[in-house]
Amino acid sequence: MTFDVFGTVVDWHGTVVRVLEAKAAKVKGSGRENDDWSAFAKEWRAGYMTTTRRVAAGGAGSLNVDTMHREILEGMLASERWAYLVPLWNEEERRDLNMVWHRLDGWPDSSQGLYALKKQYIIATLSNGNVRLLADMAKHANLPWDVIFSGELLGSYKPNPKTYLGAAHHLSVPPTQVAMVAAHILDLRAAASHGLRTVYVRRPTEDGEGVRETVKTRAEGGDVDVVVDSFEELAEVLGCVKN
Amino acid sequence: MTFDVFGTVVDWHGTVVRVLEAKAAKVKGSGRENDDWSAFAKEWRAGYMTTTRRVAAGGAGSLNVDTMHREILEGMLASERWAYLVPLWNEEERRDLNMVWHRLDGWPDSSQGLYALKKQYIIATLSNGNVRLLADMAKHANLPWDVIFSGELLGSYKPNPKTYLGAAHHLSVPPTQVAMVAAHILDLRAAASHGLRTVYVRRPTEDGEGVRETVKTRAEGGDVDVVVDSFEELAEVLGCVKN
Repeated sequence: MTFDVFGTVVDWHGTVVRVLEAKAAKVKGSGRENDDWSAFAKEWRAGYMTTTRRVAAGGAGSLNVDTMHREILEGMLASERWAYLVPLWNEEERRDLNMVWHRLDGWPDSSQGLYALKKQYIIATLSNGNVRLLADMAKHANLPWDVIFSGELLGSYKPNPKTYLGAAHHLSVPPTQVAMVAAHILDLRAAASHGLRTVYVRRPTEDGEGVRETVKTRAEGGDVDVVVDSFEELAEVLGCVKN
Repeated sequence: MTFDVFGTVVDWHGTVVRVLEAKAAKVKGSGRENDDWSAFAKEWRAGYMTTTRRVAAGGAGSLNVDTMHREILEGMLASERWAYLVPLWNEEERRDLNMVWHRLDGWPDSSQGLYALKKQYIIATLSNGNVRLLADMAKHANLPWDVIFSGELLGSYKPNPKTYLGAAHHLSVPPTQVAMVAAHILDLRAAASHGLRTVYVRRPTEDGEGVRETVKTRAEGGDVDVVVDSFEELAEVLGCVKN
């Protein structure tokens, strides 16, 4: 089983907002302590989505997500909306903030669900994040991956076919024996177009409620194999023994 | 920390010989039940060493170790020494035998030592074995890798620089912040030539006694950073907390 990570396994929005709020509370007198940190987190994440999709399609951009996150952050700080932060965040603070993506918290069911699935399956990341980011995050959020596949390691970002087919190749199975698990229907449609099985996980911050509620299994007339609300539910559906 | 695997973490010789002996016992009447299975295992392993080194130097050969092991096995069965086995081992049995490299047993200290080291370090394979082989072996021998780096994933076999430098790159550190752990002095010398730190582990089946006993640390006038007899000793030397 290969897993999308940001949003599917970890709560990027909740973690980044919490860190930004803590950072803002420390900066007295800027008058912006209660700025819209959710908007900041979403803009940062949107920059990542735009860049990874451009690179996946053959366009320019770093294959390393740490580098990319930092470039997007600098771009935001150069914009009118966030320019007031420039004197408040020095180089060290920006570098530290950029590493928040290595310390994202798992969803409440992620760690336990993965431990259950791991007993019966090889569980691997298939993320656009870089290896070190994914390894740090695994230690932080107790995610017992068997294998870490990253876009950089496989030569492109999702949804480039190199990622889905590369993972299947290195797992020594045909794509039909790999299940892609994600909270993003576009990721799953790309995976399915290369033959992978698909598991959609509804996560409150991902895909928008309108999309989330309309994703259905093939049996229900939809286009994915399984729909669940958590990894624990997935383990149960697949008959994995509990810890 | 990056780890060589065959011989360093797992006892390839002991496991392969045991499997061959069990296989031989089942073949009644061949009169060769007590053939020299250690010689068979060593010849198979020697073929692997020759091929990986040729590929690492830019020569021909598969980057997938399963494919390579099978080719070497077929070559052996075509030789006069082992030709009597051809009618005894059908396609299914050969395929199964070839997978013995996925089910190698760890040395007695390997699993516990890695769990201790994992608390303080990122522990990764840096093996010529393919990803699936290393993932299967990790489940079989309870090896809690944070990251699996394989020659195939990094584009060549050790001692090609792509392997050592690729691992450091994906771990987002300079090579001087990576320690290569191996029971083979040639692996460590290659790693050190690219800036990595080096840990030599004396293993009874590797490098020959003459070599093993002469490897010394820099402090003792030798050319590696640390010499130990087990991963548990390594964890102790590095001050890792016990489980």
